[in-house]
Amino acid sequence: LPPRLSADRYHIVLNRQHFGKSYPFKGSFPPTWNPIVLLDFNNLWRTMDEMGKEIPREAPWRAPHAEEWDKMTMQELFEKICWTSTVRRFATLFVNVNVTSEPHEVSALWFLWYVKQCGGTMRIFSTTNGGQERKFMGGSSQISEFMAKELGDRVKLRSPVCRIDQTGDTVVVETVDKQTYMAKYVIIATPPGLNLKMHFNPELPPLRNQLIHRVPMGSVIKCMVYYRENFWRKKGYCGSMVIEEEGAPIGLTLDDTKPDGSVPAIMGFILARKCRKLSGLTKEERLKRICEIYSKVLGSEEALHPVHYEEKNWCEEEYSGGCYTAYFPPGILTQYGKVLREPVGRLYFAGTETATEWSGYMEGAVQAGERAAREVMFAMGRIHQSQIWQMEPQCVEVPALPFVTTFWERNLPSVGGFLKLMGVSTVLSLATVAGLVAYKKGLLPRS
Amino acid sequence: LPPRLSADRYHIVLNRQHFGKSYPFKGSFPPTWNPIVLLDFNNLWRTMDEMGKEIPREAPWRAPHAEEWDKMTMQELFEKICWTSTVRRFATLFVNVNVTSEPHEVSALWFLWYVKQCGGTMRIFSTTNGGQERKFMGGSSQISEFMAKELGDRVKLRSPVCRIDQTGDTVVVETVDKQTYMAKYVIIATPPGLNLKMHFNPELPPLRNQLIHRVPMGSVIKCMVYYRENFWRKKGYCGSMVIEEEGAPIGLTLDDTKPDGSVPAIMGFILARKCRKLSGLTKEERLKRICEIYSKVLGSEEALHPVHYEEKNWCEEEYSGGCYTAYFPPGILTQYGKVLREPVGRLYFAGTETATEWSGYMEGAVQAGERAAREVMFAMGRIHQSQIWQMEPQCVEVPALPFVTTFWERNLPSVGGFLKLMGVSTVLSLATVAGLVAYKKGLLPRS
Repeated sequence: LPPRLSADRYHIVLNRQHFGKSYPFKGSFPPTWNPIVLLDFNNLWRTMDEMGKEIPREAPWRAPHAEEWDKMTMQELFEKICWTSTVRRFATLFVNVNVTSEPHEVSALWFLWYVKQCGGTMRIFSTTNGGQERKFMGGSSQISEFMAKELGDRVKLRSPVCRIDQTGDTVVVETVDKQTYMAKYVIIATPPGLNLKMHFNPELPPLRNQLIHRVPMGSVIKCMVYYRENFWRKKGYCGSMVIEEEGAPIGLTLDDTKPDGSVPAIMGFILARKCRKLSGLTKEERLKRICEIYSKVLGSEEALHPVHYEEKNWCEEEYSGGCYTAYFPPGILTQYGKVLREPVGRLYFAGTETATEWSGYMEGAVQAGERAAREVMFAMGRIHQSQIWQMEPQCVEVPALPFVTTFWERNLPSVGGFLKLMGVSTVLSLATVAGLVAYKKGLLPRS
Repeated sequence: LPPRLSADRYHIVLNRQHFGKSYPFKGSFPPTWNPIVLLDFNNLWRTMDEMGKEIPREAPWRAPHAEEWDKMTMQELFEKICWTSTVRRFATLFVNVNVTSEPHEVSALWFLWYVKQCGGTMRIFSTTNGGQERKFMGGSSQISEFMAKELGDRVKLRSPVCRIDQTGDTVVVETVDKQTYMAKYVIIATPPGLNLKMHFNPELPPLRNQLIHRVPMGSVIKCMVYYRENFWRKKGYCGSMVIEEEGAPIGLTLDDTKPDGSVPAIMGFILARKCRKLSGLTKEERLKRICEIYSKVLGSEEALHPVHYEEKNWCEEEYSGGCYTAYFPPGILTQYGKVLREPVGRLYFAGTETATEWSGYMEGAVQAGERAAREVMFAMGRIHQSQIWQMEPQCVEVPALPFVTTFWERNLPSVGGFLKLMGVSTVLSLATVAGLVAYKKGLLPRS
């Protein structure tokens, strides 16, 4: 598992819309020299992580404020927490990048849970010591390939299931190509929404029947641009770009060059609203726009001359529905969450959406698959109920090191708190920082 | 089409949670004697109808404020418009009743469009001269039954489609029971989400592939309680009850006695959050709770002694997914709305969700079906493109009479406007009406 370049090289960010200039930085988040923005950033991450602490990873619907937070979108929450447009803009990107959807599309409870069960705001967004640190030599598809080799012809490819009948003694599973399989138990590991591809007899219970219409997959096009040379390393950049400009197709990039330095490439994501907007373009048009923004951000003419391009629009996949994972719109997690992995007769549910740690990632898929397998083993009388849920072992090769917060990170006030400290009343303080603070515009024709 | 009782009898409402008493009223909406609440109600309906006027019924995503309004939930919009908890509570019921979902679940743009294309707040909620006025003698299922009789064995029942292949010269449609049908064109009239029950070759385009995961059906149990006698008419009530109490299972009732006075019955809806909560009870438990609340609201012991009970939990229907119609969560209408009825090859889309007038109702289904049929006729060269969209003729028997607004309804200020008129500054006015106004509580552990 070779690490990605990041700790020792500069990331680069384009986030001053009005100036349109990019600047390099080290660390997980772009830094700022504006003290108000600094307070605002610090308070945002701290607030999200503290709210996350209240949310049980295995049952977010039982959080003390579950109902309140589930009725809010992340956009509403950001409007409450953030004082500056700089932070609000980055917060939007943070949602776009992590869950390939928009802040106004997702439940605040769900998103806070999602970040929490990935270890918090630092862990989920970091490359070094974070969610994006490692890749597999030779590609992660090797896992499936080697497993398939072991399993032999028990693995059926291109055989989507269209019918599941558990009215008899054994479960009957039928595929679109009219093959029929019999089993004592069935584990369904699709995203929840793809249960809809199957016709069930008997019908699913009411809550599951409605849940699976309510948890769409995110929207992303994954774009790989290949170059003759890794020109960005020469400039001291690690290949990570954080791009906020509304007109830029890509929101985040990572270096995808092989560990030995061969096949120089930049991987970038077209996220959420931009994905839907740019789905209509041709592959060539997308490549052109991507190279243009890379050239602008990296300040390099070489970015305009790729040698190859690959892309995957996950929105077009009938049997994924999108990528990376399912999101919960407001109101759904508290009303339907509890049936997410509740077995239905002899049907058991795996898939990364049903995990309680790194749900949305390969890690979560493994946890979910093993848990579902143990649920079946329990049903078969092979193990005790208490053995179903087991902690996944820490990775010895790449341990998750704790993030140490400083005294200042823990104790600096929010912008609002700072202004109060200064003895400024709330009303006046709004005026005081009017230049810095982006405030809601009137949305109604009449009030 | 016999009219329901309503104009000449009293409706009844239970909406003072703290007093827990019900009172009768005439008209579409419960009246109030509190002048602040009166202003607040008047402003709510007026604001929603005025916002609706900006929204094109055939393309709500083109409204001048489409993006802003689509990023808001109806709950957010109510928080901006409404000053009093009385009005906010009724507004919640208004969403529950009209679209069987919660204000925090639906996009404000979508809900405002929905109300607008049903003729506005008065038309959609009224019995007399409104959406709930008429029923069919003998039941509306007669329409399907008589049509089926005419069509003979060309109507296939219990034959859900699981595969649609349009890679060849004709479209091949396959059902779960392995029958295959060939056609030059196909009209799909399911709710959009139920397209997912079908496996498509070639795959649907990216936006449609994602749209159909994003538009869930609402949640409702329709409950019919039958009595020996129509005891409520004797008390001067029309059988309409508006029930706001959180503990009450039912939100709205209508008299369902036959026109000749036989088979006395009250129809009631268990809506949205209450539907999900009460889905787990037995039928008997639900009946008991329903009779108890009817008894309380009508002030009658007779309500406790039904002679029969029928209910339909639409959430359990695999091939509906819920009822009455699909709703759009925040962000979806502007991003995906335009592909809702866009043909895909030789597939055309009908179903009430694709209508532009009374979408969500039988009326909309007829409009959509005829429009889709004409799209196919155009594709076949039988009609001109300009003939596809046609105005549905007005019903001669039951014309939609205009609602006349009074000078005061048009010109009374909002609560905020009233306080400004009185020369009270916004900050002070908040304090002034603190007793009447329910204000947002702090939702964050820290700010």
